[in-house]
Amino acid sequence: MKYCSLCGHPLRVAVPPGDNRPRHVCGHCGEVHYQNPKVVVGAIARWEDRVLLCRRAIEPRLGWWTLPAGFMENGESTMEAAMRETWEEAGALIEVEDLHALIDVPPIQQVHLFYRARLLRLDIAPGEESLETRLFRLDDIPWGELAFETVRLALRHEVDAPGGGILVTSLGSKGSSDQRHRRTSPTA
Amino acid sequence: MKYCSLCGHPLRVAVPPGDNRPRHVCGHCGEVHYQNPKVVVGAIARWEDRVLLCRRAIEPRLGWWTLPAGFMENGESTMEAAMRETWEEAGALIEVEDLHALIDVPPIQQVHLFYRARLLRLDIAPGEESLETRLFRLDDIPWGELAFETVRLALRHEVDAPGGGILVTSLGSKGSSDQRHRRTSPTA
Repeated sequence: MKYCSLCGHPLRVAVPPGDNRPRHVCGHCGEVHYQNPKVVVGAIARWEDRVLLCRRAIEPRLGWWTLPAGFMENGESTMEAAMRETWEEAGALIEVEDLHALIDVPPIQQVHLFYRARLLRLDIAPGEESLETRLFRLDDIPWGELAFETVRLALRHEVDAPGGGILVTSLGSKGSSDQRHRRTSPTA
Repeated sequence: MKYCSLCGHPLRVAVPPGDNRPRHVCGHCGEVHYQNPKVVVGAIARWEDRVLLCRRAIEPRLGWWTLPAGFMENGESTMEAAMRETWEEAGALIEVEDLHALIDVPPIQQVHLFYRARLLRLDIAPGEESLETRLFRLDDIPWGELAFETVRLALRHEVDAPGGGILVTSLGSKGSSDQRHRRTSPTA
């Protein structure tokens, strides 16, 4: 971030008055440009004892299996984001049921949310970002071919605690033990 | 957003290849500037039958009562954000326990998360953004003087379901009924 998106003048890094962190501040118009974590939302879409996975058609992790998920957009709720991503990546209609997992990923400035959902129809088809969509029995999840650690944790939680509790955890956080940030609500 | 933060040239609004939404795209360097919802994190900090509230020293809602909460920063987890905000706004040390509420606010592009927490010490003091900090018994919460609707919902959930379940709901979402987005997990 080098230039002000409002007036086009160069930015400098400084701690604004009343703040305690360095920010990108415009030397011309004074605007402070904050940078904040992004929300990624996905779905654990179930059909009986099977779960919907997509094989990625794009980098990173092209060819690896993932849950339908992606960046939340302005103007939608997290549940709407889960439905939209599942539609876009797997052509699948779902009914969102409950929150399944909240996984912080501080090193890449992301918060990953997964919702438990029910697949409404069996006709699924890969979207532009998927090579393939498939329903896997929980016993047959391709654990060694999963694209992302948050996907692995969310699926692991589905296997370990089917239909119950929310996994709340953090990946790679500085200055805090895993234990402190690994909780399952409300049963833990 | 008018100018490219990377190269300073004017932006135009266009649907990038492979995308399905208008974005701010740089006509010079080609960078796509995405805009995404921000995460606000707060704490329901309890001391026995009382909960910690702060009276706001800043706009909006100067003078109204709120839970300690604020924008999540890059590099921290949501639990760390809850601890930091509670320290900054109320000088209070907490131990975060469980996720309490996830409240989407699509009209203002925000996702509000509240954690249930235990106040570790009774010495609290207003930070720069607070006029006053006080512990309220659940019976005495100043319902008519709360700053924000998400704060009211989070406190209401604490009163209605003490220590159990996570409120997942959405405020003012377009195109979806409140009922569809109002769930308490996993008891509902």
